[in-house]
Amino acid sequence: MQQYPSALLQRAVDEFSRLPGIGSKTALRLVLNLLKQPEESVEHFTSAISHLRKDIKYCSVCHNISDTDVCSICSDSHRDHGLVCVVENVQDVMAIENTQQYDGLYHVLGGLISPMEGIGPGDLQIASLVERVAKGGIREVILALSSTMEGDTTSFYISRQLKPYPVKLSVISRGISVGNELEYTDEVTLGRSIVSRTPLDKS
Amino acid sequence: MQQYPSALLQRAVDEFSRLPGIGSKTALRLVLNLLKQPEESVEHFTSAISHLRKDIKYCSVCHNISDTDVCSICSDSHRDHGLVCVVENVQDVMAIENTQQYDGLYHVLGGLISPMEGIGPGDLQIASLVERVAKGGIREVILALSSTMEGDTTSFYISRQLKPYPVKLSVISRGISVGNELEYTDEVTLGRSIVSRTPLDKS
Repeated sequence: MQQYPSALLQRAVDEFSRLPGIGSKTALRLVLNLLKQPEESVEHFTSAISHLRKDIKYCSVCHNISDTDVCSICSDSHRDHGLVCVVENVQDVMAIENTQQYDGLYHVLGGLISPMEGIGPGDLQIASLVERVAKGGIREVILALSSTMEGDTTSFYISRQLKPYPVKLSVISRGISVGNELEYTDEVTLGRSIVSRTPLDKS
Repeated sequence: MQQYPSALLQRAVDEFSRLPGIGSKTALRLVLNLLKQPEESVEHFTSAISHLRKDIKYCSVCHNISDTDVCSICSDSHRDHGLVCVVENVQDVMAIENTQQYDGLYHVLGGLISPMEGIGPGDLQIASLVERVAKGGIREVILALSSTMEGDTTSFYISRQLKPYPVKLSVISRGISVGNELEYTDEVTLGRSIVSRTPLDKS
């Protein structure tokens, strides 16, 4: 057990170590860096975090993180409001936005169904998705979840919930990554990419 | 440039990204983790950091981080007060304490002389070291600085400053690391370890 020369230091290191991927050595390095900074900068740091935690809102439509009741994507009239892309979390929205290939709306589930971690459909924003679809006006729901057991389970569950509604359902395509060599692609992905091949435009 | 869905989120991510070794992706992961935690835990986190920055003291004798005016090492009467080990920073004190091989006191310089970074002797706790030695009662000063240009320069400077005083000066030994194979040791280290060989006890 590492001995710290100060209880205050130890407390700060312990708090940092509780963050994911931060071990006690990294935590100590970060804390000592904060100690060297002017008191004002440290205040900026802590107040940014407190404010975020206290004042953050979630969009009442898509449940994405937002500063306002309805997020900037959901309130953008230039986007296609008939298209909803279902994702696990905020990072996924940001990743898809970065591609600049999508101009519809989102629906952030806040996780995936995982019996192992005790996360059921009731813990996720699935009922509110069904409600959005039931209201009408949505033409297509795209399921953009991870290609894992949990992702597939969640996609399957959502597809069952949306069955009664006249909405088109689609799943993002799985296949070999752009730029990846065929021989290094794992066989499950390669198999899927052959089965779900797309027609080539010969024109 | 990454687009964040919320200015509050962006501010917190920016603050985290200013820490050494934390990129914007890691920062986002840490911030989103804090967002999922109960408000109380986040308060514990921020208050630990503010308290540390505001209330931390530096030992008036050795300049190590401390909760009290004189740190627990300097005020420990069981330790050898005639022995002072000079180190660069707090982490070095912790590393040497971890070896459980040393029972003297420390002197934390707070850096190393580095003309490249504009750090001169006046920016470090060197004058206070000379003062400690001048007061008397110190038998030996051990220089335990990194084996780098800056470390060697600082050791040399300190040795010159302490020349007028009747105190023994020593440097921690440089040599091949315990457990390291000879053939993989760099030649400078290997050369030094031959030159500064120590007599073997034949008893």
